[in-house]
Amino acid sequence: MHNQRQELANKQRTYMRDQSKQKNISNDLHQEAESALNLALQLVAVHKFEKARKIFEHALTLDPQNSDILVEYGQFLEYHQMDLIRAEQFYTRALVHQPSNFRALELKKRTLPLVQEIDQKQFTFIDNLLKELYRIPDTNPYLRRAKRDAYYLHIYHSNAIEGNTLNLRETRYIVETRMAVPGKSLVEQQEVFGLDLALQYVNCTLVNRLGSITLEDILQIHRRVLGFVDPVQAGQLRKHQVYVGSFVPPTAAEVPDYLDDFLKWLNSLEDTRDLHAIELAAIAHYKFVYIHPFIDGNGRTGRLLMNLILMRSGFPPVIIKKSERFTYYSYLNQANDGDVRPFIRFIAKCTERTLTEFIHQSQPTRTTGQELRLNDGENAEDNFMEERVIMVE
Amino acid sequence: MHNQRQELANKQRTYMRDQSKQKNISNDLHQEAESALNLALQLVAVHKFEKARKIFEHALTLDPQNSDILVEYGQFLEYHQMDLIRAEQFYTRALVHQPSNFRALELKKRTLPLVQEIDQKQFTFIDNLLKELYRIPDTNPYLRRAKRDAYYLHIYHSNAIEGNTLNLRETRYIVETRMAVPGKSLVEQQEVFGLDLALQYVNCTLVNRLGSITLEDILQIHRRVLGFVDPVQAGQLRKHQVYVGSFVPPTAAEVPDYLDDFLKWLNSLEDTRDLHAIELAAIAHYKFVYIHPFIDGNGRTGRLLMNLILMRSGFPPVIIKKSERFTYYSYLNQANDGDVRPFIRFIAKCTERTLTEFIHQSQPTRTTGQELRLNDGENAEDNFMEERVIMVE
Repeated sequence: MHNQRQELANKQRTYMRDQSKQKNISNDLHQEAESALNLALQLVAVHKFEKARKIFEHALTLDPQNSDILVEYGQFLEYHQMDLIRAEQFYTRALVHQPSNFRALELKKRTLPLVQEIDQKQFTFIDNLLKELYRIPDTNPYLRRAKRDAYYLHIYHSNAIEGNTLNLRETRYIVETRMAVPGKSLVEQQEVFGLDLALQYVNCTLVNRLGSITLEDILQIHRRVLGFVDPVQAGQLRKHQVYVGSFVPPTAAEVPDYLDDFLKWLNSLEDTRDLHAIELAAIAHYKFVYIHPFIDGNGRTGRLLMNLILMRSGFPPVIIKKSERFTYYSYLNQANDGDVRPFIRFIAKCTERTLTEFIHQSQPTRTTGQELRLNDGENAEDNFMEERVIMVE
Repeated sequence: MHNQRQELANKQRTYMRDQSKQKNISNDLHQEAESALNLALQLVAVHKFEKARKIFEHALTLDPQNSDILVEYGQFLEYHQMDLIRAEQFYTRALVHQPSNFRALELKKRTLPLVQEIDQKQFTFIDNLLKELYRIPDTNPYLRRAKRDAYYLHIYHSNAIEGNTLNLRETRYIVETRMAVPGKSLVEQQEVFGLDLALQYVNCTLVNRLGSITLEDILQIHRRVLGFVDPVQAGQLRKHQVYVGSFVPPTAAEVPDYLDDFLKWLNSLEDTRDLHAIELAAIAHYKFVYIHPFIDGNGRTGRLLMNLILMRSGFPPVIIKKSERFTYYSYLNQANDGDVRPFIRFIAKCTERTLTEFIHQSQPTRTTGQELRLNDGENAEDNFMEERVIMVE
């Protein structure tokens, strides 16, 4: 099990931002960061923890790769914030930048098994939720409705993450009537058709098929996702370099080899048998968007691929909400910096939420949670309207 | 030249509806048709020509393959309606059904050279119009506007022929704003995107490229035509049988060989050097829709292919109007029955109309024709509105 994880980590090295290419910071910044670190440690000594936390964060903003700051902040999180998981993440980050850092090695050696135990418990908790969901009969009308609603929610959120401005009500209207929503661009409405067709393909064709997931499957998903918007690029690997913020994915020439490697890994029983389905799905999503094989539609295709993997293991598809998009991106960035586990934990949380909601909604007497479900802090009014669409049959 | 045409005719045999498969009519119908023929001939004898024409048509409706009726009606058209071209068409039809019919052979032998001369004169007339158009400088703002208008007219008419209910104003709005027209299905609006992208591809990429037209070119056109509506089938040859009214195109298994044959013919200098560009374009369109290589979008792709061929010979693209669709289909049917020339003449007429309109519109003082141009008898009010869009800049 541990070897398996170690191998996984080795493999991940090809799916990491090249740290050596990061710019070195100036001496001035370095010294200011060191001063901030000293100040933070003094504040800890006098039990001013909240102030200390802010100064630690400030020090890290100035010098994000400073192993001393990473190790000290990690220990602060472990002992004064009782956040073992984040603490271990900082020890890991310190080791990414300075693999021989003795203190970080010692700290990680002690905390890693504890963190693995926490992660494993979370997976067990989710597996039990899944068993609970399976005890609800398929014929339960509330569960059926919840699943149908989730279908539209996936289309809405997956498009909204990419900047589509249609709301849930409009999205559902387009899928159900195939009619145009006035005052909105056709491209946005075609993106709804795209995810609708791709979801049908995943749900009806790919989920129930045995055997490996192939390049052709991925191209077929992408063909549907992007086809209504860009019939020429849909289903075609990109032929040019793309840039995703500050992240530079592999060159177009490297993409086929990366994908080949990725699919060999994904379909290899040996490589993946010790991974929980959520780990496999999350890592697959991460690797896929790292490769960024298409000119556009990588996120949407990656989320469908992740859900395909989850569904083939009996899990319901998960929804990453529009309001979570910055968290989602930051976890993908952390994976780029060498630690994919925060992203796996995020997908585990999304899975837990989906399972809890399905179980909850299958019991019609509890209505409060159902009403609040969509209200994720953003556009409360809009979501209220959207919720009505879901409540009214 | 004559041999060339003969070879062409031989080749066409594979692009003809199999006459032997047509149902034989009952004896009763046959006798009633013969009686009608006799009546028509009696009416001709007493110079009641209009009545005779109607009875001839009635006789042919009863027994469309009766060589006697075809020959007699042909002679009637030749001598009493002075319509040499249609007369020769009826002699040809008689020979399709009864190749050894002596009277038909004699009549055709006499009329064919005359008809060929008429056709050739029409091509010369069109070539002269083209020269006249080329004398107008490219910078003429009225000509530029007319060409831009023709772009939207092509999209509008080519979609409308297939049943799209968007009018010209809505079509232009969609292309120019990329916004949705309320109250219309998204599929119809996506068909506008499809033809827009396909036209751009033909106009910007294919027209100026030297060398043969390839299968890949046709797939790329189709990918754009249908991609926004059906990303899965777009750019893919059909895998199932299709039916076009009573016409049954080649089986899906035969399509690749037919296309191969078609492209060899289209790109062969030897096969096509004696054909006028209009003949080549029209026959190519006919053969293409005969093969019907796609599940949908064959007509639109075929019209683009025809225009590509015309443009590569320096002609402007032609527009087949929505109001002409039944005429258009009937000429394609006549080609199925063995005579592609009525369809060629129809495309020649469309080319002549386009050239005349461009020449006319490049001279702003003559406004009457411009105002009436779109009014093709159908939806006069609608066209009036559409015309306004074109008039207002």
